[in-house]
Amino acid sequence: MNEATRVLLDESRIPRNWYNIVADLPVPPPPPLHPGTCRPVGPDDLAPLFPTELIGQEVGADRFVPIPPSVRDVYRLWRPTPLVRARRLERALDTPARIYYKYEGGSPSGSHKPNTAVPQTYYNAREGVRRLTTETGAGQWGSALAFACAQYGLECEIWMVRASYDQKPHRASLMRVYGATVHASPSPVTGAGRKVLEETPDSPGSLGIAISEAVEAAGAAQDTRYALGSVLNHVLLHQTVIGEEALEQLASLGETPDVIVGCTGGGSNFAGLAFPFLREKLAGRMDPVLRAVEPEACPSLTRGVYAYDFGDTAGLTPLLKMRTLGHGFVPDPIHAGGLRYHGMSPLLSHMYELGMFEAVAKGQTECFEAAVRFARTEGILPAPEPAHALAETVAEALRCREAGESKVLLTALCGHGHFDLGAYDRYLSGQMEDLALPRDRIDTALAELARLPGT
Amino acid sequence: MNEATRVLLDESRIPRNWYNIVADLPVPPPPPLHPGTCRPVGPDDLAPLFPTELIGQEVGADRFVPIPPSVRDVYRLWRPTPLVRARRLERALDTPARIYYKYEGGSPSGSHKPNTAVPQTYYNAREGVRRLTTETGAGQWGSALAFACAQYGLECEIWMVRASYDQKPHRASLMRVYGATVHASPSPVTGAGRKVLEETPDSPGSLGIAISEAVEAAGAAQDTRYALGSVLNHVLLHQTVIGEEALEQLASLGETPDVIVGCTGGGSNFAGLAFPFLREKLAGRMDPVLRAVEPEACPSLTRGVYAYDFGDTAGLTPLLKMRTLGHGFVPDPIHAGGLRYHGMSPLLSHMYELGMFEAVAKGQTECFEAAVRFARTEGILPAPEPAHALAETVAEALRCREAGESKVLLTALCGHGHFDLGAYDRYLSGQMEDLALPRDRIDTALAELARLPGT
Repeated sequence: MNEATRVLLDESRIPRNWYNIVADLPVPPPPPLHPGTCRPVGPDDLAPLFPTELIGQEVGADRFVPIPPSVRDVYRLWRPTPLVRARRLERALDTPARIYYKYEGGSPSGSHKPNTAVPQTYYNAREGVRRLTTETGAGQWGSALAFACAQYGLECEIWMVRASYDQKPHRASLMRVYGATVHASPSPVTGAGRKVLEETPDSPGSLGIAISEAVEAAGAAQDTRYALGSVLNHVLLHQTVIGEEALEQLASLGETPDVIVGCTGGGSNFAGLAFPFLREKLAGRMDPVLRAVEPEACPSLTRGVYAYDFGDTAGLTPLLKMRTLGHGFVPDPIHAGGLRYHGMSPLLSHMYELGMFEAVAKGQTECFEAAVRFARTEGILPAPEPAHALAETVAEALRCREAGESKVLLTALCGHGHFDLGAYDRYLSGQMEDLALPRDRIDTALAELARLPGT
Repeated sequence: MNEATRVLLDESRIPRNWYNIVADLPVPPPPPLHPGTCRPVGPDDLAPLFPTELIGQEVGADRFVPIPPSVRDVYRLWRPTPLVRARRLERALDTPARIYYKYEGGSPSGSHKPNTAVPQTYYNAREGVRRLTTETGAGQWGSALAFACAQYGLECEIWMVRASYDQKPHRASLMRVYGATVHASPSPVTGAGRKVLEETPDSPGSLGIAISEAVEAAGAAQDTRYALGSVLNHVLLHQTVIGEEALEQLASLGETPDVIVGCTGGGSNFAGLAFPFLREKLAGRMDPVLRAVEPEACPSLTRGVYAYDFGDTAGLTPLLKMRTLGHGFVPDPIHAGGLRYHGMSPLLSHMYELGMFEAVAKGQTECFEAAVRFARTEGILPAPEPAHALAETVAEALRCREAGESKVLLTALCGHGHFDLGAYDRYLSGQMEDLALPRDRIDTALAELARLPGT
């Protein structure tokens, strides 16, 4: 066993390809449907929103997609990211498990999101797009896209969920430092926003509403396109740099993972770490358990249904077959804003149906307990989102202690929590709550699905 | 010329020794004096405040001090830190200069401060100390010491300058996550604090006042010692890991620096980068210009005097021979809270007298302009303190453009600005000011010095 704590790779080891797991699935995922025609959405339907190259990646089935040199060059600002052995956490837990975390919080905007923001911006810039619009929840995606637009000289306009905008004003400030324009959503700037504000003037917003606003704004201008930070196939594709690097880093230690844990909101962080390992598993070269961790307040995998649903609240997107709580579901305002999405990536949802990974749900106090323990041992302050993965990793490490098993655990620490200290304050002062999610709230939101085409 | 962007070192390359520049100075620095006797302070005088090992380092003249294995082991959580070629900034400035920055913001608490917090805590723990007290201005030192105390199981009690405590409440939250107790200073908890509050109930505090409180609390308890985040010889010593790594990293590229730039508050960040390069310069192996950058609002090097003065406001410390604006000087509340100290490290002050480095002062708007430019090109959001060094680095790069000189510039990017976005908001909205510092405010503070012994 190697004695290393942090496994670093030289920048020449930045992956040269993204990995497209669709090429290796036994059954292809169901296509998105046009809500009017109920027919599969074609490239032409997506052209007002996305550049040609990304549409090709969205529907493509090539196993490997070359990473453009310009994108690899921006990646060099923070990639390869470190893989770290959490020795001090292991000691505190008195576990025979060996815990590794892949840390993405050292990126410019502090999370894994720039992995896809940079290529998305690059392809848009190459096709002559001048402005990108997007939504952001916790703000990690918004700051990543703002950073990427600064790199390629594009304008960036962002709708940030009102609840997060008020809770974390400095996330919006960071976007502005990078040169972006930021609106609290619902905003009076779009029709979708005005409609919500008329009905609910003090709406805290939701990712679904913010998506509606950003999509509307992109559709309204010729030189403008839309960018999405999770959920879609091309986003998950770009995130596979995480897993490719981790594979090489673990191999350099002679380690093979037994359990891989990641948090899921839209699913891109979990997929980014998991897909390359799943490829190895499908090829019979290793046999890890893969486990997604979602919040009890927004449990699309563990309590949702697998059905066609809109990706946004206003019904502007194609219909996506996914695990969903219904596009009308508004989750409680837990602190992990990045996990408050009613659906789950269609690709991951499909793979969940195929039994390719497990899922568990966690209450937020257990997650913050794990995060504080992690900060005091490993030093890094985790964001509330990966704190969900840490909570499950800690639980697994304690099961290993009970069973006397020295498993190798790998988790995705996808971002730092420097903008989330208000949430830590609430936890430390005993004011944090785990609200139960009554069955009827889910049922009400799901009832609407029956009225959608394609179900 | 190597094409690397980030130069990483394996953790086996963490330095094995700190470098003590006192061994190589042509004249030893003047000793601290006991304010009562006017005689040099001896180890016994310092024993109530510091553990034996640190007192030995404070007065020692050995060229190299071995770094204990336990300290190197904690360093592995973030060291060696990257040396980065700022190619995108170079391109934006259209300069032939090659700009490198040594980035310390990836440490657990986000700055260079853990480099000394960890060994200070280690030596205290080894000598049976149970609790450490300290002061903090911008909060970077406080969070570093809180992190280090969590590593070694010590209690940590911190007095944070009231102005920063109110401006940046989340810095205090981070200290609490690490398990520390935090007071706004002046506080009602100490005699020194109560005295200030009686005279000035709404005092914004200062580093000098906070030091008085922390020193008083340490002196009052048997199992408690005090820790200082800058100024003293042993602190500067510990920071030399920065320069030792940078030397190796530049050498691996075949580069020799022409200009080395760092910001100075108490001086430990600048010294940490500069001292190993000064050793090489004294030995005739290179000939860089070394330049300290201080804020116009607190210009101890460029407008202070070289005299014996107290390190704190209440006059509890020994008298230190240093560049000082007078211990009664209260700088304007600029955003670089870490640079608001009336004095300068005695060792650096002595070397400044010897002409071993240059100093310039900058207004804060120029610094924020450079910081925003840096964020938009290099991605990292700088703290306001190293923004001073960046402003001078940009100015030097532009001089290189005028002169057509491809100099090698090296700067210390000692921390990220994730807790400073309120200041960026003020800059971006045009509300930031550069207040002139009238000569008579300095004269008034300096007048008190004439009444001190030793001058």
